[in-house]
Amino acid sequence: MKRKHLLGLQELSAEEINTILDTARPMRDIIMRDIKKVPTLRGKTVATLFYEPSTRTRSSFELAAKFLSADTLSLNVAVSSVQKGESLIDTVRTIEAMGVEILVVRHQQSGVPQFIAAHTKMSVINAGDGFHEHPTQALLDLYTIKQKFYKIKDLRVAIIGDIFHSRVARSNIWGLLKLGAEVTVCGPPSLIPVEISKLGVRVETNLDRTLAWADVINVLRIQKERQDKGYLTGFDEYRDWYGITREKLNQLQNKKILILHPGPINRGVEIDDYVAESPQAMVNEQVTNGVAVRMAVLYLLAGGSDNGVTI
Amino acid sequence: MKRKHLLGLQELSAEEINTILDTARPMRDIIMRDIKKVPTLRGKTVATLFYEPSTRTRSSFELAAKFLSADTLSLNVAVSSVQKGESLIDTVRTIEAMGVEILVVRHQQSGVPQFIAAHTKMSVINAGDGFHEHPTQALLDLYTIKQKFYKIKDLRVAIIGDIFHSRVARSNIWGLLKLGAEVTVCGPPSLIPVEISKLGVRVETNLDRTLAWADVINVLRIQKERQDKGYLTGFDEYRDWYGITREKLNQLQNKKILILHPGPINRGVEIDDYVAESPQAMVNEQVTNGVAVRMAVLYLLAGGSDNGVTI
Amino acid sequence: MKRKHLLGLQELSAEEINTILDTARPMRDIIMRDIKKVPTLRGKTVATLFYEPSTRTRSSFELAAKFLSADTLSLNVAVSSVQKGESLIDTVRTIEAMGVEILVVRHQQSGVPQFIAAHTKMSVINAGDGFHEHPTQALLDLYTIKQKFYKIKDLRVAIIGDIFHSRVARSNIWGLLKLGAEVTVCGPPSLIPVEISKLGVRVETNLDRTLAWADVINVLRIQKERQDKGYLTGFDEYRDWYGITREKLNQLQNKKILILHPGPINRGVEIDDYVAESPQAMVNEQVTNGVAVRMAVLYLLAGGSDNGVTI
Repeated sequence: MKRKHLLGLQELSAEEINTILDTARPMRDIIMRDIKKVPTLRGKTVATLFYEPSTRTRSSFELAAKFLSADTLSLNVAVSSVQKGESLIDTVRTIEAMGVEILVVRHQQSGVPQFIAAHTKMSVINAGDGFHEHPTQALLDLYTIKQKFYKIKDLRVAIIGDIFHSRVARSNIWGLLKLGAEVTVCGPPSLIPVEISKLGVRVETNLDRTLAWADVINVLRIQKERQDKGYLTGFDEYRDWYGITREKLNQLQNKKILILHPGPINRGVEIDDYVAESPQAMVNEQVTNGVAVRMAVLYLLAGGSDNGVTI
Repeated sequence: MKRKHLLGLQELSAEEINTILDTARPMRDIIMRDIKKVPTLRGKTVATLFYEPSTRTRSSFELAAKFLSADTLSLNVAVSSVQKGESLIDTVRTIEAMGVEILVVRHQQSGVPQFIAAHTKMSVINAGDGFHEHPTQALLDLYTIKQKFYKIKDLRVAIIGDIFHSRVARSNIWGLLKLGAEVTVCGPPSLIPVEISKLGVRVETNLDRTLAWADVINVLRIQKERQDKGYLTGFDEYRDWYGITREKLNQLQNKKILILHPGPINRGVEIDDYVAESPQAMVNEQVTNGVAVRMAVLYLLAGGSDNGVTI
Repeated sequence: MKRKHLLGLQELSAEEINTILDTARPMRDIIMRDIKKVPTLRGKTVATLFYEPSTRTRSSFELAAKFLSADTLSLNVAVSSVQKGESLIDTVRTIEAMGVEILVVRHQQSGVPQFIAAHTKMSVINAGDGFHEHPTQALLDLYTIKQKFYKIKDLRVAIIGDIFHSRVARSNIWGLLKLGAEVTVCGPPSLIPVEISKLGVRVETNLDRTLAWADVINVLRIQKERQDKGYLTGFDEYRDWYGITREKLNQLQNKKILILHPGPINRGVEIDDYVAESPQAMVNEQVTNGVAVRMAVLYLLAGGSDNGVTI
């Protein structure tokens, strides 16, 4: 992979995505301690700059860096110069000037990682920007699907929930389509953007039909703040219409669909306890695979070879 | 030690406690730089998950891990998924799935570390749970006593202060009794739980008699929030009755009792400046020994040999 | 350098300052990855204790420590025992007892690092105390000047802005005078302390005359909180009188003065966008040099040789 940045899956080729997924496999063995931690990134410094709090994603990136023996710098935006009114680019340049080589950034505004990438010599990894992309989340979802089905092509994948506000949905759509999957988005009409069908995905508002169709479902997290803005009439009603419940799974009889969720789970809202605990649910696998794909991305952006990881 | 978790001293045998104390001795030499830092835990990852803020205990665990060359992950609960309503067990499973092997947890509710241990493959270390146990604090107290008296058996140890709300008191009682010490608890009647005498400790409300009796006193921290709830009539009155003052020490004439305090000290409340600064007070020794016993616990839980540390 | 602490430039000799600057040169090569990271401080532990928030300076120190393979401990004062009313010295003794060897401290009160140094066995580095000193900032400014002019002696350096509240100004004055520079301070009369001329600096309130005179200007950050206290009548008025604007630079015609700023920049207040982006402005160079001089200071305080760094 000859890229310097990972800004989104929209701009990657199928081959590039597959390179990352293939590289993640030995990385997973390091996490599972089947092979020993390696000093591949020794002497490199990875900084995380999060304008939205997320212990989960930030920790995943930091552990990925540490498993490869990189140094890490965690920039707490709440108490940083940002408060003193420093501009985004001044912050980025300062980090670069301190000797950081890879910057992992999350920002509430779409396009910020792209903007930063245009103004720095560091490698930039998008850890989520507005409603735009969250590429490493989609990569870990793809990895988890491939782990179970040994392929992505021709699989039927449904993304269920608040599509409108979801960068996870957008990155998944790009990645799945590029690798040849069929994609359906399913959710309340108010939470499905009208232009989404132009991307080549099916739009569905009926959950039963969606479940009957799918091999894999990716259940999005319902966020409280959305409810306040009038997109949802209530959590209970949402659960009645789109919640993945025991009954819904039982309706499918012998068909065992794979269930993904980016976490953290709102148990009893978008997914029930019984479902989250079922062997079909990949929630914890996804977390492990998240560290693995982030290791792969760090490794490849730092100049690691495509032709098999030499670790 | 064949245990996987350190949840409390109540469940440990005297032999197990002594194994930890013996293992802590060479660890202390590492802290004092008498012997070099060793890579015993290289490739292991230790996470701290604190639901109550405590820079002191958290730093002690993190330095202990670093002195053994482990990687550390500090999970800031205030800004984490916990805010997003994620369940405790989901948080723990996420940490486990990221490749963490040892979890150090503090929680305001008694029993949480036990609950976690039942639901994870990680080793769990209790860094304080409600009013229940704080085992590494008691281990460092035991270590400090043994360092001075070369034994615990038959020593007279008094624990002074708010026994009711103190996990430090409870863990100390278990540890001291198991190693054969005589234990007295001393404090205002409102702060001594009635059932405590069943454990085999003497109950005393008179400080002078307690000091006359003791070889060692462990002076608990008086916490402001307790006062608000009506357990104490005032700091000044507490000091008059139970404060360890210069006059109290002088009354003992040539008898030099050993003075422990878990820190941070409320100077002028439960202990006076003069006393805290006297050579009998072990406050800073305790801090060093705290890192040492935590290194020993990390080492042993990670599978280190009982028969002498091979470092 | 036989010193144990770095508390301020006032107490250093010219020779000591030059030793630090000379040592910083190979350190800079490590940051730029021209030479590999070295384990010079392996096994040493560096703690940062900041009573004022500053991601910028704290990160610089932590990266400096990591580039030399030291362990780091970041003490977040906001959530620490300090809240529980622990005294400063108790906090410091606890850190020392945990096995930390070098303490980097920032405090809003002048003299705190000196006070700490008198009460600890650790090496203490002043990362800014009240309006007193910020020695590593001045060292990086000196390094940046020397990098461009190959000397400090006989250079004309003007420090512009709020001299009164600036520890950066004070440390710069000491360092520049010791190395033989001529120094002018320039700013609104309300922000220049009357006794400053006794140090041997020129006092100037006219920016045009100052710029015409100077080889180097060090533009101080204007802090909002000062304005509230009546020292400044307004940001716009400040900019009119003391802002470094494109027009001011153009007035100098072919004379290219070197422009320093400690960052973060208030663009459009003390310095204009155009100026901050000009090749004369050393803002990012200063950041890199900041890590380098901090590495040099850590190395020398930890006992590194003066006669050339053996790395």
